[in-house]
Order: sequence, then C-alpha cells, then structure tokens
Amino acid sequence: MNMDDLILVSVDDHIVEPPSMTDYIRDHVPARFKDRAPRVIRRPDGTDAWLIEGQEIRTFGLNAVAGRPKEDWGRDPDTFEEVRPGAYDVHERVRDMNANGILASLNFSSWPGLGGQFFVTNDDKEFSAAILRAYNDWHIDEWCGSHPGRFIPLALSGFAVGPEFMAEEIRRVAAKGCHAVSFHPEPHRFNGMPDIHGDEWDEAYRACEESDTAMVFHFGSAPNFMPRAPFDVLIHTMPFATGIFASELLWSPILRKFPTLRFSLAEAGIGWVPYWLERADITYQKHHTWTGQDFGDKLPSQVFRERVLTCFIEDTVGLETRHHIGVENIAWECDYPHSDATWPQSPEILMKSLVEVGLPDDEINKITWENACAFYRFDPFEHLPKEQATVGALRALATDVDTTPKALHGDHPEIMAQMRKMQREQTATTNGR
Amino acid sequence: MNMDDLILVSVDDHIVEPPSMTDYIRDHVPARFKDRAPRVIRRPDGTDAWLIEGQEIRTFGLNAVAGRPKEDWGRDPDTFEEVRPGAYDVHERVRDMNANGILASLNFSSWPGLGGQFFVTNDDKEFSAAILRAYNDWHIDEWCGSHPGRFIPLALSGFAVGPEFMAEEIRRVAAKGCHAVSFHPEPHRFNGMPDIHGDEWDEAYRACEESDTAMVFHFGSAPNFMPRAPFDVLIHTMPFATGIFASELLWSPILRKFPTLRFSLAEAGIGWVPYWLERADITYQKHHTWTGQDFGDKLPSQVFRERVLTCFIEDTVGLETRHHIGVENIAWECDYPHSDATWPQSPEILMKSLVEVGLPDDEINKITWENACAFYRFDPFEHLPKEQATVGALRALATDVDTTPKALHGDHPEIMAQMRKMQREQTATTNGR
Repeated sequence: MNMDDLILVSVDDHIVEPPSMTDYIRDHVPARFKDRAPRVIRRPDGTDAWLIEGQEIRTFGLNAVAGRPKEDWGRDPDTFEEVRPGAYDVHERVRDMNANGILASLNFSSWPGLGGQFFVTNDDKEFSAAILRAYNDWHIDEWCGSHPGRFIPLALSGFAVGPEFMAEEIRRVAAKGCHAVSFHPEPHRFNGMPDIHGDEWDEAYRACEESDTAMVFHFGSAPNFMPRAPFDVLIHTMPFATGIFASELLWSPILRKFPTLRFSLAEAGIGWVPYWLERADITYQKHHTWTGQDFGDKLPSQVFRERVLTCFIEDTVGLETRHHIGVENIAWECDYPHSDATWPQSPEILMKSLVEVGLPDDEINKITWENACAFYRFDPFEHLPKEQATVGALRALATDVDTTPKALHGDHPEIMAQMRKMQREQTATTNGR
Repeated sequence: MNMDDLILVSVDDHIVEPPSMTDYIRDHVPARFKDRAPRVIRRPDGTDAWLIEGQEIRTFGLNAVAGRPKEDWGRDPDTFEEVRPGAYDVHERVRDMNANGILASLNFSSWPGLGGQFFVTNDDKEFSAAILRAYNDWHIDEWCGSHPGRFIPLALSGFAVGPEFMAEEIRRVAAKGCHAVSFHPEPHRFNGMPDIHGDEWDEAYRACEESDTAMVFHFGSAPNFMPRAPFDVLIHTMPFATGIFASELLWSPILRKFPTLRFSLAEAGIGWVPYWLERADITYQKHHTWTGQDFGDKLPSQVFRERVLTCFIEDTVGLETRHHIGVENIAWECDYPHSDATWPQSPEILMKSLVEVGLPDDEINKITWENACAFYRFDPFEHLPKEQATVGALRALATDVDTTPKALHGDHPEIMAQMRKMQREQTATTNGR
C-alpha cells in the first residue's frame, strides 16, 4: 500500500478546552449555576488557567507541545496565544488533521481530567451533574458536531458524581448518538469511591451494554514510583501501568458478568500485550483452582481478545507480534497535541513501521481504521466518500497549513524545574493514597 | 538438542530456612546476641513461624508448594513436616535438583525478605549487622558450601543496616568468593531510606564494582493495586512491576556513574523486554533534550543490554522475540519451591518452548547455562565434568526421588481466606506508604 492510500482513524487525541466553552456552559446549566461556570483566567504571573470552584487548573505543559521543536519542550506554553490553535479550536483542529492525513479522531478532555475525575472534588452533586452534562453536550454537539464524520464522540462517564448518575448519563448521551464514555481506571483513588472489583458500578455497566456503549480507559497517573523518579520513568512506563490496570479489569467480575460490554485502552501501547496474554493464561491454568477464577470453557486471553481494543502510536515490536495480540484488537492513535504525538508526520512514521514489519494490506486497513470504526460503531464514509478520506486526499486539502515547528517567543527556563516539582508532588500524592 | 543433553543453571530459587539455622547463628554472633537469635516456634494454632525480636514471620504459603497437587494449594503447609524437605534441607534440595535435571542454582532468602528488608525493622544496628553476617556465612558456607559446584552464592546486601555496612559486607562476602548480593528494589519503602536516584548508595555500588559483584533485584511486593484486587492480579503483573523498577534503574544515575556494575532482575520474565527497550529508546529520543538524560553516544537499550541479565520460567513470547532482547541477556530459572516453579518437569516444559520457537543449539546453551555462568562468574564444571552435568546424567542419579504430588494430610479451608486477607493488608500497606 502507498502511504497516500492509508486511511487513518486515531482513537486517542486530546482537546485543550477553549475559553469560549464557558459561554456554552452558562447557556446550558440552570440559572443558579451560571456564575459558577468554569472559566479561563490570566493569572498574575501572566499564565492562563481554568478556574473552577476556586481551583486553578493548568491545561498546557506537555499537553500541548505539538508543532514545537523538541528542544523547546522544557519551555512550555503559558497562554492560549502560545498554544497551537488546533489544540483548542475545532476548525483549526480539522485543518491540522487534514495536514496529517487523519480522517477521524476520538478526543479526550483536559481540565476535567482524562476520566472526568475533576468532578469528584465537588460535593455539590447537582452542580457537578449540571456542568458535566453541559460539558458532554458541548463535546458532542459543538466540537464533534461542527464537523460531521471527523470525530468519534466520547463523553465523560460521570463516575465522579456516582454510579446512578453515571448510568443515567451513559443512556442520555447514547440517545444523542455518543456510544463511548471515558471511565477512570482508578476510581478508588477519589473520595473513598469503590474500585472495580465489587458490584457498585454494575448499573453503569448495564447502561453501557443496553445502549451499545463502549467503556474507554485512559491511564494518566503514575504508578508507585520512587520519590525522586525522573519524569522519563513516567513516560517510559505508562503502558506498563495500563497493563497492570488491564489485569485488574481481566480478573475483576466485569468481563464475565457483562458478556457484551466492550473496553478500550487508550495510549496503552501494544508491544506488551503478547506477553501479558501468555502470562494471563499461565496464571489462570496454574492458580485458578485455589483463587477461584472461572472463565468457563475459555482462556482469559480469549475473553480479552473478544472484548478489548488496544492501540499504539509507535510500536514496531507490537506490530511484529500482532498475531499474538489479535489483529482485530489493534487500533492506531496520533495523541495530538501531546508530546508523544507523531503530528504532522504520522503517515510517514506509521508507514515506516508498516513496511519494516511487512504488513499485508488487509491487516493495515484493519489496524489503521477498520477495527476502530467497528469497535466504536462509527461509519467514516457517511459524510466523506472513501476516495476523499485517504491521507493523500486529505493532505491535498491542507496545503496552506503551516506545520513547521515554532519555538515559543518567551523564555521560561524555570518551567522545566516547575514541571519536575509538580511531577514529584503528584507522585508523592499518588503514593500516599 | 535432546532434552537429556540440556544443561540447566537456574538463577532464581528459594530457601525456606531450616530451624537448625538458629544454632548456626548462635555460634556465629557475639555472646550478648545469642539469646536473640531468630528461631522457629510452633504457635498455639499448630503452625510454625520464625520468631525474631518479637515478630512472627511465616515462611510457607505459596512459598513452598512444590510437589503438591495444584488443587491443594489453597490448603497451605503449616509446619515444616508438611513442606517438601527440599525447601529447607540442602541435601534433599540437591536430590530434588537432580530429579529435575538442574546442575546449579542461585537461592534467595525467605524470612529476611527477598532483599533482606527484615533487618530494617530493627533499630539495633549492631545486632542486625551481626545476624546478617551470620546469615550470609550460613548461606555461603553451610548451604552453598555443602555441595560445591551446585549453588551460586547470593548474599543479602545489608542495605537495611545502611550504605556503609552494605559496602563493607559486599567486600567481606566477595573475599569469601560470593560475587552476588540481593538489594531491595524499593529501599525507600523502609524507614525513610533513600531511593536509588541520589548518591546515598554510591559506596555500595563502588564496592560491587571493585569486587566484581553483581547486584540482584527480586521484586516481591505489589504495585499500586486496587483495594479489592484478587491475588491473580499480583501473580499476573509481577513482571510488569519489575519492568517499572527496571525503568527506575535505567533512568537513575547508577548505570552511567558505575560503568562496570552489572544487574540481574530475578523472576522478571522476558516477554515484556522487547517493547520496554523500544519504548526506552523512543522516550529518550523524544524527550531527552528537556529531561536532561544523557547516554552519550549510546541508546538506553544498548546500555541495558551491556549490563542487565533477565530471566524467565515459561515465556514463549520472550523466546520468540529474543533477538530484540539480546540472546546474551537471557537466563532461565526454576523458582523452586514457589508456586510458579516448573519442578519436577522443568526440562520437559522448557524443551517444549525451545522446540516450539525453534532455538538453535548455541542459543539454547546461552540461555540455559552459559549466560548465567558468565554473568555470575561461576564455573559449573569445576566440580562436575560437563558430561555428568546434563539433565540426563543428573536425573540418572535421582531415580529414588519420589516426585509424585502429595496432598497435605490436614484440611485447612480457612488458609485460603487468610491468604487473601494478608494480600489485601499487604496491598493496603504498600499503597499507604
């Protein structure tokens, strides 16, 4: 296959919410909550942040480095003016997708957290529910709705408000055509919420099954790192943390209790999966008699393959060993605008791996778009005929997009030290929980 | 290669210390410590435990299931009488090694913890140092020394007493011919000790370099599991926890500051390594300009391959992808008498993988004994000529060893519940640190 003939559907990208979202939320919550709508402030030090119920949340940093030279990542964007507009403006985003040959994309949230955990911090459930509904409506109607066929909608699950609201919200967004929700892989870290090994979330899982909604997990926090671990450890091992979460999911009652519920692991990587599956089966065969696990006439690896979608950014080892994973279980992601993203050379970088590993065309199609579309019940050609959906055709639309790396104008040598400090604090907090 | 021609050196097995060790310790510590020597007690409930400074430590459970039917593992041995004698008696151990065709083995401790962390709990450093020295002498002289050529000695590093003592002890045991020490992969979990990202342990690393001693890490504790995680998660993901530790090691200053220091990861598995190495290089190439990591003219994967030995029990995926790991970096382990062990069918189970993957003879030899012997500076044929060291030759010596699985006589249905409770408590403790 030629690179220009690839069709790319990315199952993991990110939105840096634009300041204009505030107006949308104000218009979509009961009058008494209007003044409390989250909004962007410029702080005394000249940096931008979201202000929500007195809490300031920064949504830049490694979140929004796309389009800048690597040497410059230590000096992070401080304001919306310094971020590539594609991070927060949907029309610019689509232009950046075109420039990168990407047909469609599934987008995660920033200020609410990847799984919407922000809402846990608020005890006013009614307020949280109202904001969360407005957020989801904005995501579905404003962001995804403004360019039909270019985005796979992904709602916040609402777990942070509680299982009942979560079930209700899953059904509400499904009725609007959104069949994917982001659940947090570590709900037990927040306010004493239950983990996934009991039946407390069953109502939500049932709502997913009944509305044909997939549950998506994006791991974002650090596992039990050493107190002085450098940031490289977090970047390097995030997929292993996802692997450990996938194990929690596998041995929890969920997969067996809800036999049609489907799960997606975002930014998971795939190269670790063959070993993980082999070890799952060995663990099961050696230990199930005393641990009491029961997968009936199946092996754990089979159950995983029937129900879980994984994805990768750059992962030659995973592509080489794809038959141990299941070619149907692999999707591709760009991760725009985060620091792991391959934008604007995604097709080149991906094609290099595909050629190196020697993938046949049918497997390339499965991995670059068919699996993602099947899993997310998404018809990519409803709004754009196939011949206009390829890398070559989309790039032809975007010849005016300037993709040359742009360094920041300001000089912020202290930000790198700050980031390390934040990372240490986050690690300490995680370890202390 | 025929199975009978294999030569097997296992780099990870375990000693359940025998009650007789108490007498040895008493004879080898200053008179004032004699009464405080650790000893085995039979508790009111009929179970055996080590009593050390008022603390009772059980060394059975999944530690000592070799030789019992799987269905029976829930009912764990309570007393020394119920454990297979090879777990604690060195002469019986050698017979069990013969029956399994194993030429030589590296053994970890039980009551002191895999890395000797037990000694941290004691504030009396002089006492701890005396017991630890006696323990190491017992391991080297009594256990390994009683069957020359059959054991690779492995000392406790003494980290728990502090870096200075550790350096001293490393030099002391090296002078006795022991060139491997077990350091704990999470020293920061104990009494506010430093992690591995500073220079506090440098003296110990220097002692290793100067005495040509390898540093061995055996991961044993749970990562940040969910509060109600079933035990299967721990068993399934232990290698991933080791992978996360290996990342801490890779990005710490140690490998670069001590360019000849060698590391071994016990019970690590190997199937995750190819992906881990690929991601290490991607992480480095993408992020080193702002994180400040510097591997000079090398890639992190090269440095890892020059310095780290990994090992596996059953791991077809890892063997298939061995060229991504480095065939020289792979050793084999039996894990006797733990529940993951392949005893007494290790040669059969290993051979099945080797044939399935199609390993050539030179690679088989590297993996089953040459790499281990080179790494641990161990000459396996000093005491036994090569033709007497094969699986076939050793098994011929052990025709009288009864290897049929034996169920326990007692009926202890509550032990399984207890184990789950202990696991939950351990997880909670780990998470809380």
